[in-house]
Amino acid sequence: MLKIGNIKLSSRLMLGTGKYENHEVQKNAVAASGTDVLTFAVRRMSLEEGSTDAFKGLDLEKFKLLPNTAGAATAEEAVRTAKLAQAAGLCDMVKVEVIGCDKTLLPDPVETLKASEELLKEGFTVLTYTSDDVVLARKLEEMGCHAVMPAASPIGSGLGILNPYNLQRIIEQAQVPIIVDAGLGSPADAAQAMELGADGILLNSAVAKAGDPVKMAEAMKLAVHAGRYGFEAGRIEKAPLASPSSPVEGVSPRT
Amino acid sequence: MLKIGNIKLSSRLMLGTGKYENHEVQKNAVAASGTDVLTFAVRRMSLEEGSTDAFKGLDLEKFKLLPNTAGAATAEEAVRTAKLAQAAGLCDMVKVEVIGCDKTLLPDPVETLKASEELLKEGFTVLTYTSDDVVLARKLEEMGCHAVMPAASPIGSGLGILNPYNLQRIIEQAQVPIIVDAGLGSPADAAQAMELGADGILLNSAVAKAGDPVKMAEAMKLAVHAGRYGFEAGRIEKAPLASPSSPVEGVSPRT
Amino acid sequence: MLKIGNIKLSSRLMLGTGKYENHEVQKNAVAASGTDVLTFAVRRMSLEEGSTDAFKGLDLEKFKLLPNTAGAATAEEAVRTAKLAQAAGLCDMVKVEVIGCDKTLLPDPVETLKASEELLKEGFTVLTYTSDDVVLARKLEEMGCHAVMPAASPIGSGLGILNPYNLQRIIEQAQVPIIVDAGLGSPADAAQAMELGADGILLNSAVAKAGDPVKMAEAMKLAVHAGRYGFEAGRIEKAPLASPSSPVEGVSPRT
Amino acid sequence: MLKIGNIKLSSRLMLGTGKYENHEVQKNAVAASGTDVLTFAVRRMSLEEGSTDAFKGLDLEKFKLLPNTAGAATAEEAVRTAKLAQAAGLCDMVKVEVIGCDKTLLPDPVETLKASEELLKEGFTVLTYTSDDVVLARKLEEMGCHAVMPAASPIGSGLGILNPYNLQRIIEQAQVPIIVDAGLGSPADAAQAMELGADGILLNSAVAKAGDPVKMAEAMKLAVHAGRYGFEAGRIEKAPLASPSSPVEGVSPRT
Repeated sequence: MLKIGNIKLSSRLMLGTGKYENHEVQKNAVAASGTDVLTFAVRRMSLEEGSTDAFKGLDLEKFKLLPNTAGAATAEEAVRTAKLAQAAGLCDMVKVEVIGCDKTLLPDPVETLKASEELLKEGFTVLTYTSDDVVLARKLEEMGCHAVMPAASPIGSGLGILNPYNLQRIIEQAQVPIIVDAGLGSPADAAQAMELGADGILLNSAVAKAGDPVKMAEAMKLAVHAGRYGFEAGRIEKAPLASPSSPVEGVSPRT
Repeated sequence: MLKIGNIKLSSRLMLGTGKYENHEVQKNAVAASGTDVLTFAVRRMSLEEGSTDAFKGLDLEKFKLLPNTAGAATAEEAVRTAKLAQAAGLCDMVKVEVIGCDKTLLPDPVETLKASEELLKEGFTVLTYTSDDVVLARKLEEMGCHAVMPAASPIGSGLGILNPYNLQRIIEQAQVPIIVDAGLGSPADAAQAMELGADGILLNSAVAKAGDPVKMAEAMKLAVHAGRYGFEAGRIEKAPLASPSSPVEGVSPRT
Repeated sequence: MLKIGNIKLSSRLMLGTGKYENHEVQKNAVAASGTDVLTFAVRRMSLEEGSTDAFKGLDLEKFKLLPNTAGAATAEEAVRTAKLAQAAGLCDMVKVEVIGCDKTLLPDPVETLKASEELLKEGFTVLTYTSDDVVLARKLEEMGCHAVMPAASPIGSGLGILNPYNLQRIIEQAQVPIIVDAGLGSPADAAQAMELGADGILLNSAVAKAGDPVKMAEAMKLAVHAGRYGFEAGRIEKAPLASPSSPVEGVSPRT
Repeated sequence: MLKIGNIKLSSRLMLGTGKYENHEVQKNAVAASGTDVLTFAVRRMSLEEGSTDAFKGLDLEKFKLLPNTAGAATAEEAVRTAKLAQAAGLCDMVKVEVIGCDKTLLPDPVETLKASEELLKEGFTVLTYTSDDVVLARKLEEMGCHAVMPAASPIGSGLGILNPYNLQRIIEQAQVPIIVDAGLGSPADAAQAMELGADGILLNSAVAKAGDPVKMAEAMKLAVHAGRYGFEAGRIEKAPLASPSSPVEGVSPRT
């Protein structure tokens, strides 16, 4: 059981919406993933008209909604976007995302801190997308963020975890949930994040843009479980040299 | 469904025996893994006396047995060992393992080729443990081996896949099943092997020596499924730069 | 020729002082490295008494001095430390270093920004130690820093470049010199940093704590040249498959 | 000083011929590299007519010649090729190269062993190109090969060292020179090979196909020295966490 603020989640996999070929595929992928958190870009929705087209076919009663502030380049824009989602009743939590680089879509640390602080003051349950800067992650936690979401690699890149070392430091120091966000490309990436001790992961492109998104969603669900169980079970240590898998001494004489 | 020679397998995970703390743990780990192939070192068994102590508590009717020739340093020893297992009725297939280096337990390519050739002539269903030498793997296949089992890294090391490049070449060129054997340490390693297109994996230490072997067996079962589904679904390509996970252009006007 | 602010440097290797076994070794290592920039922790010096013991045996006329603010945990402390060095006449440039994590010694992004801003106002030539956060590096440059010094990995760890991807992004976007600082452990690490296009590197532990610091200093000097020349020469692209190193078709008939 | 059989070499860098844009560039790159061993594919030369066009402009008196058997797919072909070079007087040593895979140009272990054995019997000074199979490398040494040349990665790929682990095992166990051959792409790769303890490296495409081959040759010369000195000097150990590069305790009081 994962708890973010006062929100209890049964799945450790959060899933994006809006990049699928069509709503049918999205609905089936969401179901296959077992997620109970759906993320979406507020900017993409015509909230004014009450349209929630991005969710077409999904029974929103079954999910926690995680609007994100994608498209914001400043704290001010991010805060305004979050409030829009709240006003539209589409907001259980909010994911702060303030982009600082158009090429890599990596976050702006200064504006991210500001936006998070402001939204915390306003009473939001705040999950903040950040780089894997170790000290920045701690500052977000100290500020009161309900979860910290370090990037594995640039959004949509599929490059996996570029710096497992930093991620591990972030996880070790954290008292709030760490959700690895952005850049994961395959089930092995998902399992690796969970084995490092992450509390959950967020995926969008890796599922939505896979050859078969529904099967990939199922794969990711299994990978998250596999990685989590592996973390809990405790893996063997890495040893530079071999130890016999089938020890042969002292048992049956060499004939 | 995986088929090796004439033997049909429902699981893509093969599991070693004999390194567990006790038979109860082994039995439960085997069950949790969902495997239908159990491997064991013939040398470790007192076959003369009909003892199958290594399998205590396991219902052998439910599994395919894969005796291995661990402890053999020459083709001759390996062949003799395989025949012992056959004579004892403990042999659905045989895993050829001829060690050429005491430190790394990496296989001897020359003796491995010889042993495989001889056992194929004798009518065995042969699965051969080998290094990740690309040409050697092809020679084993051309010779008639029913499966080729390249090492990810030294036996029991938990170092994972040291050379994914070679493994991928081996898998691409193969017409027979490729079972990644030795060195896998965690669920992410298992998933990675399967995503590369391996037909299965063999684990021993990674499960038997984990903190909680039964939970790790479950983790590995899920990881193998996750990796396989990921392979079948088709992952996104790796892109050096980001693509917006939540595209924002042209949808709702920036307010 | 490397230029930082108005300071011209002939070597792309900056070297730390104060971790050597004795002053003789330090002097010889400095000479072997060919550096013309010496860094030192202001905090370690008894500046009050005019002591420059850390430099014993070195002819300071020959070097540019780069005092760093190591030991500072806030912008205020860093600024005060920089001014101490300036007042003591030991300051051609200043390296801003504000630590935000005692375990990893990784920098505090917020205090680092503040300290850099303040020292720029005061007219210092500022080189700022930072994480490999891509946007943070750009902000430091935009603020006016004369060089940005992203960490390869934690100070003194010898882990090398944990995230070459981020480093490359930082280098690509930069208009000011990028000096890779912290964590480099071997000549190959140094060469890699330079091949990525870094303008220089800063070393301390990798030289001072090597088995033979003087020989390692020489090795690092060569590695920096090698990496720089390699960058300038333009390496071959990586190709997933082989191309014949000794092409044989169409030349001499196969006999 | 490197000694292979009875041949003494002053440089640890061997260089291929025949892939350069023209003879002038080749001559200058060879000079810049400082090599004293030139390799060439016998198959490419019109030895029948005494032509040594590949060497045009080079003063062959100054170099040791290392003909290779590139183009051979069997031991028989390799032996015949070696004898051709010998008959033409172009042979101080011979590099056995028997390709077993057209796609990767990785060597055939069985034919490689046979060819090496045969040429050793004939009295050649034999350097054998092999995969990074640890046991195979040892067998070649035990057979009497004067040097073993494991591939870093496929010929001409520039992928660098795919499996440093295996390479290190090969180097540790060896009593004869280990020359890392094939796949190195940049100065950092060259330095890494030397830091692992290799006795030398062989390059062709990485230099000949670089943007500026002459400058790259110079870079590689420096990288080989850097890596060797680094190996001899003894690098610092990798530490998972930081140690202060500029220790601050107990020296000057925090003000």
